[in-house]
Amino acid sequence: MKLSFNTWAYSSFPVWVPAYPLEETIKRLARIGYDGIEIGAASPHAYPDYLSAERRREIKQVLDDNGIALSSMLPAPGGGPGFNVASPSAEERRHTIEHYKQVVELCAQWGGATVLYVAGWQVFGTSQEQAWEWSREALREIAVTAASYGVTIAVEPTSMDSNLVESCAGALRMMRESEAPNVKVMFDTIHAMYRNEVPSDYVYEMGEHLHHIHLADTDRLPPGAGRGDFVSVIAALKEIGFKGYVTMEIGFNRRDSEPDKVARQAYEYIKPLVGA
Amino acid sequence: MKLSFNTWAYSSFPVWVPAYPLEETIKRLARIGYDGIEIGAASPHAYPDYLSAERRREIKQVLDDNGIALSSMLPAPGGGPGFNVASPSAEERRHTIEHYKQVVELCAQWGGATVLYVAGWQVFGTSQEQAWEWSREALREIAVTAASYGVTIAVEPTSMDSNLVESCAGALRMMRESEAPNVKVMFDTIHAMYRNEVPSDYVYEMGEHLHHIHLADTDRLPPGAGRGDFVSVIAALKEIGFKGYVTMEIGFNRRDSEPDKVARQAYEYIKPLVGA
Amino acid sequence: MKLSFNTWAYSSFPVWVPAYPLEETIKRLARIGYDGIEIGAASPHAYPDYLSAERRREIKQVLDDNGIALSSMLPAPGGGPGFNVASPSAEERRHTIEHYKQVVELCAQWGGATVLYVAGWQVFGTSQEQAWEWSREALREIAVTAASYGVTIAVEPTSMDSNLVESCAGALRMMRESEAPNVKVMFDTIHAMYRNEVPSDYVYEMGEHLHHIHLADTDRLPPGAGRGDFVSVIAALKEIGFKGYVTMEIGFNRRDSEPDKVARQAYEYIKPLVGA
Amino acid sequence: MKLSFNTWAYSSFPVWVPAYPLEETIKRLARIGYDGIEIGAASPHAYPDYLSAERRREIKQVLDDNGIALSSMLPAPGGGPGFNVASPSAEERRHTIEHYKQVVELCAQWGGATVLYVAGWQVFGTSQEQAWEWSREALREIAVTAASYGVTIAVEPTSMDSNLVESCAGALRMMRESEAPNVKVMFDTIHAMYRNEVPSDYVYEMGEHLHHIHLADTDRLPPGAGRGDFVSVIAALKEIGFKGYVTMEIGFNRRDSEPDKVARQAYEYIKPLVGA
Repeated sequence: MKLSFNTWAYSSFPVWVPAYPLEETIKRLARIGYDGIEIGAASPHAYPDYLSAERRREIKQVLDDNGIALSSMLPAPGGGPGFNVASPSAEERRHTIEHYKQVVELCAQWGGATVLYVAGWQVFGTSQEQAWEWSREALREIAVTAASYGVTIAVEPTSMDSNLVESCAGALRMMRESEAPNVKVMFDTIHAMYRNEVPSDYVYEMGEHLHHIHLADTDRLPPGAGRGDFVSVIAALKEIGFKGYVTMEIGFNRRDSEPDKVARQAYEYIKPLVGA
Repeated sequence: MKLSFNTWAYSSFPVWVPAYPLEETIKRLARIGYDGIEIGAASPHAYPDYLSAERRREIKQVLDDNGIALSSMLPAPGGGPGFNVASPSAEERRHTIEHYKQVVELCAQWGGATVLYVAGWQVFGTSQEQAWEWSREALREIAVTAASYGVTIAVEPTSMDSNLVESCAGALRMMRESEAPNVKVMFDTIHAMYRNEVPSDYVYEMGEHLHHIHLADTDRLPPGAGRGDFVSVIAALKEIGFKGYVTMEIGFNRRDSEPDKVARQAYEYIKPLVGA
Repeated sequence: MKLSFNTWAYSSFPVWVPAYPLEETIKRLARIGYDGIEIGAASPHAYPDYLSAERRREIKQVLDDNGIALSSMLPAPGGGPGFNVASPSAEERRHTIEHYKQVVELCAQWGGATVLYVAGWQVFGTSQEQAWEWSREALREIAVTAASYGVTIAVEPTSMDSNLVESCAGALRMMRESEAPNVKVMFDTIHAMYRNEVPSDYVYEMGEHLHHIHLADTDRLPPGAGRGDFVSVIAALKEIGFKGYVTMEIGFNRRDSEPDKVARQAYEYIKPLVGA
Repeated sequence: MKLSFNTWAYSSFPVWVPAYPLEETIKRLARIGYDGIEIGAASPHAYPDYLSAERRREIKQVLDDNGIALSSMLPAPGGGPGFNVASPSAEERRHTIEHYKQVVELCAQWGGATVLYVAGWQVFGTSQEQAWEWSREALREIAVTAASYGVTIAVEPTSMDSNLVESCAGALRMMRESEAPNVKVMFDTIHAMYRNEVPSDYVYEMGEHLHHIHLADTDRLPPGAGRGDFVSVIAALKEIGFKGYVTMEIGFNRRDSEPDKVARQAYEYIKPLVGA
């Protein structure tokens, strides 16, 4: 099991500050000891529309120079463009699908092989069946492009923020209905806890389909600083033979978060559990 | 003084749900009694890229049918594209300026005459002088387009979220340095309180330059539900002869907010103060 | 619209005390002004196994003498027998179905025509698909018996306590899949708010299928005492032409609750909204 | 002194989820290091009515295979059948007595020798003398059956939930009045603290009659996580030469409890105190 860290805490999303350039973020995470970095597709880090070919090569070089791998990428839902694959706006749905394809391409250019899928949310007036169907269609289209780049799409239940794919069962159902071999599932411990569910239960239930995992304690604190049971989560990951990146997605929800500190604290708590 | 309500609580920004289509939002706010609506330029409501000419006409009709005016518009900073006019990314700065121009045009098409300006934020590695200069240049360019549409740009200090234009004095300085007659200032009571300052002080200090105002009590609660002194704010507005829209920007920071309830509660608290 | 009150606050479930005999409870609720009473199938009130034919006639007489109608009945899930229709124990599932049939019969004997359906919960090791299927089968069997008694079964999403039918969409799907004309849906405002959803949205989405409703403010407080928006809920019920019982299910989760007080408080807050 | 853990946190009582099958629960508690397990007579774990002879043998085997002993059993009061030995319903009282006898038999079949006795509660309209007498009679009848199985009945004061046997003195009086040699007493630290009493006082006062003990910190937290003084409790137990099971009855009152975590946390806090 390798350890990775998600960049939101170092970017302008969703809280605007503090924000660091991507080069700086890569260097800091590598220095702490992370094997991988999960890069969010948001400015000033990695909004595909803003990245020239030269800039992409530059970042790839920084990753290589620091000996850290791109574990995964993901879009930044919300904001002006929304990026809701289940939006009642046909223009938004189309734009979102194209954006996912751009993220997939960027991910592959930087040596990554995993893009996370947020299944969108139901807006008032749209039936859940319709929202689900739009999301499923989007996923299938994105999966085809991803396959051509050797990228796996991991469906994430996001109960804390959305109302469509909320649970372990929901993510597995979306995966199955995509009928695409390169679609798998992942989960974030904080979304399981938001539902007052036990995160290690998700590990067992997702089993061989579990491709990626986000660790976050309650209130997006570093693992071990809240009420989550990460001893059981890591034990369960070992039991099912998980080979992916254990990725911290923490400390980005409050402006008073100090990115280096939470990154270090999470590493120091999880590394011994994983290594043991 | 007219009362207006900002749409974030009814849209997918920054919290994804609950979200209502723009038509539904317009109808509900009109029914509660608001004179105006402040529409955020975010999907599924009003992201300019997604709105066809027909859709724009459709929404204009809904506004007219419900007898409610467009008091103002504003972009949704953060998210994938960032919309930080002071970003180290030249691509982001250019894209943001163009986005503001689109919002200005849309605002005019819907009968509005005010667009708010968030002056951006300083990213690690950029000097404050440089960030300020980028923001000032952006503002001047946007103001030219706005003038051609008869639109006023109102600079807002956003201390709670950013680090560039944070105070009453900062907003006034940015206004002056724009050297554009259609650039004015505004403020949100919650940003004043974030700095532990007295909101009515801002009214007197901004005086004749105060073009617009956001009311929000602590924690984005409806005025009267937190620790803010809105009796003094309304009295000060009367004293300076404020003629603009008193706009509630509340209830959008938490998923458990019930939009109709906060809109009704704010209206019922402020209306007698304004009307008296 | 008629007003009803659920008996949990006056019984030994789920908190053991205070507890009042059923006759006493009926008299008190009638005196406050309620049109109906919702009786939980729990001792010492109404556990079917404990009620002789004579006792049943006695209670019917008390209802008639006090001029209050039986609005509805429901079982008490949890406790020794569990009453989880989705339990991995085949014995529990069978026993639960038989218990529902007994509750249906009792309800009809007391002049009622509505029994609520709690769809059970998924135990670790059972897939959600299996749990759902067990629940669906149980519902279909119960619905046949209910039809013979002229009783409607109302499926309730119980997100706060369970993990199977959690949402508006989930309840509607279970209803549809029952393929029984006497199966409808209902919801409790507290379960909607537990999901940080807007209760009036449920009214519109359930529409003509909405057969019954529970009002409870946050923390099972009387409507108006928490953060819920009951003005919008009642307005929405009027808009869809709801003809059922508006039932308070409150004050039963804490031992320090005073049943008469919460019953009175809820009545006094809701009656004017409904009557207006 | 041996350590045991009560199963409520892993079952559907009183909070419905999370719930684990009994086999899974046994395995997890054994792995953490517990010597014993206290099994609640509630579904899906151990409701006697639902357990065939084969199923009973199966569970006995799982206990043996995991090297963990059945420290004790107890019924789940409340819920549909109530299980209140002091109920005004004669049917409920009879049913409850029979249920206790079934629990006694099941306990013996699984190698246990202790069943806890919750003395019931007074319902409005019943005098306390009458309620006490009903409870005493029930206890005497249950004790006769228990004796034939070699099982001891331990009377527990439950001040936090009931109103009949609330205190140390009350439990001792009920024990004496049972006039049965196989009736003893026990207590739960949380019920002592609910009365603002000192738990170690109970140990000294119950002395040689103290047959069993429940540890729970305030709010059912693991010992050491609340305001309880467990150093004194364990010291007192040593002083009186307590030979029974020190049993954690924690983490079952909230849905957001993670069973493995609280079980581990309690074990890690108490084990050194006991072992020292």
